[in-house]
Amino acid sequence: MSDTDKQQQYGHLVIIGGHEDRKREMEILTRFVELSGGADANIVVLTAASTIPDDMWSIYDEAFGNLGVTRRSHLELTSRQDANSEEFVRQIDEATGIFMTGGDQKRLLALIGGSALDAAMHVALKTRGATIGGTSAGASAMSGHMLAQGRAETLPEKGSVSLGAGLGFLHRVVIDQHFSERQRLSRLLTVVAQNPYLQGIGIDEDTALVVAPGRGIEVLGAGAVTIVDGRTMITNVADIKDRDTPELIDVRLHLLPAGSSYQLPSVSHEAGKGLPPPLLDFLENVTKRNPIQ
Amino acid sequence: MSDTDKQQQYGHLVIIGGHEDRKREMEILTRFVELSGGADANIVVLTAASTIPDDMWSIYDEAFGNLGVTRRSHLELTSRQDANSEEFVRQIDEATGIFMTGGDQKRLLALIGGSALDAAMHVALKTRGATIGGTSAGASAMSGHMLAQGRAETLPEKGSVSLGAGLGFLHRVVIDQHFSERQRLSRLLTVVAQNPYLQGIGIDEDTALVVAPGRGIEVLGAGAVTIVDGRTMITNVADIKDRDTPELIDVRLHLLPAGSSYQLPSVSHEAGKGLPPPLLDFLENVTKRNPIQ
Repeated sequence: MSDTDKQQQYGHLVIIGGHEDRKREMEILTRFVELSGGADANIVVLTAASTIPDDMWSIYDEAFGNLGVTRRSHLELTSRQDANSEEFVRQIDEATGIFMTGGDQKRLLALIGGSALDAAMHVALKTRGATIGGTSAGASAMSGHMLAQGRAETLPEKGSVSLGAGLGFLHRVVIDQHFSERQRLSRLLTVVAQNPYLQGIGIDEDTALVVAPGRGIEVLGAGAVTIVDGRTMITNVADIKDRDTPELIDVRLHLLPAGSSYQLPSVSHEAGKGLPPPLLDFLENVTKRNPIQ
Repeated sequence: MSDTDKQQQYGHLVIIGGHEDRKREMEILTRFVELSGGADANIVVLTAASTIPDDMWSIYDEAFGNLGVTRRSHLELTSRQDANSEEFVRQIDEATGIFMTGGDQKRLLALIGGSALDAAMHVALKTRGATIGGTSAGASAMSGHMLAQGRAETLPEKGSVSLGAGLGFLHRVVIDQHFSERQRLSRLLTVVAQNPYLQGIGIDEDTALVVAPGRGIEVLGAGAVTIVDGRTMITNVADIKDRDTPELIDVRLHLLPAGSSYQLPSVSHEAGKGLPPPLLDFLENVTKRNPIQ
């Protein structure tokens, strides 16, 4: 098997900041369908984050139908028993694209975290090249450390944001969504201040970060992706009281608007030339092909 | 004259992000009064930024009165003729504290920029050690390059912010106010993206950046000071269309909440020890004792 074949066995991630266009141009959903096999795609919609799963399914049923996807189905999961059932696992095993809707990422993880379905999604992504998409809660759920909840105040505030265990398709990052629209930079800085191991990724509405494992990233849609990197930051966060605002010195901030696209230097010499050095580490991290655990 | 005496001849700047407390604790105004000589202060309130100067004066008349300042006066300037008149210049020449109210920084500069009054303020600051305070528009007006106007959108937008010529007590910076409350980071990033020569300073409401020339800075009040430094940034801003969002890679962001205080290494060995290296250049720049031009 050639190196290219191996890469093709490891699928893409389409991480969407919520409120993606589902009616008109559908740039992001079109891309998700293409990456899932186009007309041959078999797309499974996982609505478990939502308390109105049937409404969610009808929205995406229509959207994917309009995009020419004939094989599309609703994964109607309502319990952990479902998440460990052969029937649902089989539905994932046959999917070429898995799409996680919005809702509450804590609800999603409470239902599927650590289940046979969760494991099947990793197998689909990492051995069959299935594409995994997620919007809003479905975006936050993708990383190993998941932004579970927390207020978005005007300033960062120690102890105001809590993390949980996500699905782990990506590591060393934390993902927030509806980012510029809901002014969530302070919330993301709060996470990074207390967890500088994690790089913060904030994704705007109708905007997607597409990760091509082993290859690169691109930003699609209407807004931008904001990255905050606190690894060289100096802060007093360990010494202040809860609810106080930490001092933060030297946080690195990157803003990648729709249209930004970067490939790893290893993909081709030409691609590497265009990569700004401060992005290299971020790119290596998010495009890493993580093993099945 | 000793070096200390010389430093004392160069006054402080009290740069306030608007809506400072004028009724209760008055932490910031108290500090302004102390730096202006306390009970011996002679405070002149410059309301020219405002279209309701009498209302402005009555607010600060009461506040400074409650803080025990007996010598306080309103500089009732309404034209450039006033700004070049001996009477108003004499009022500045006798002041130990000059306070610029809110309003519109463009109006303030149109009235006093380049006038004899402007020159007298530089003499007061730089040879007599007078303190200069400014809130909101009065804060923005302090730097040489002044944020004149511009929308604060959810994302940075090329060409959406315009600069003007400010009073020039500080250089190589641009100051924005009501910063976290009005979510102005995108606006400040827009300025820095197009003018990486300038470091952006965003000051929250009821928050002050106090600059002790030749010595150091401190942050007082309820919020924080945000600094954005784009000098090592990589961006495509030169190549994109107006209104498009630039890509920004490696903007350095510092957040200094109230209570932060830093001195230059040259002030004392001990002081220098606590200074995070990424702040050194910022500190050297803002504390620079600029000559009278």
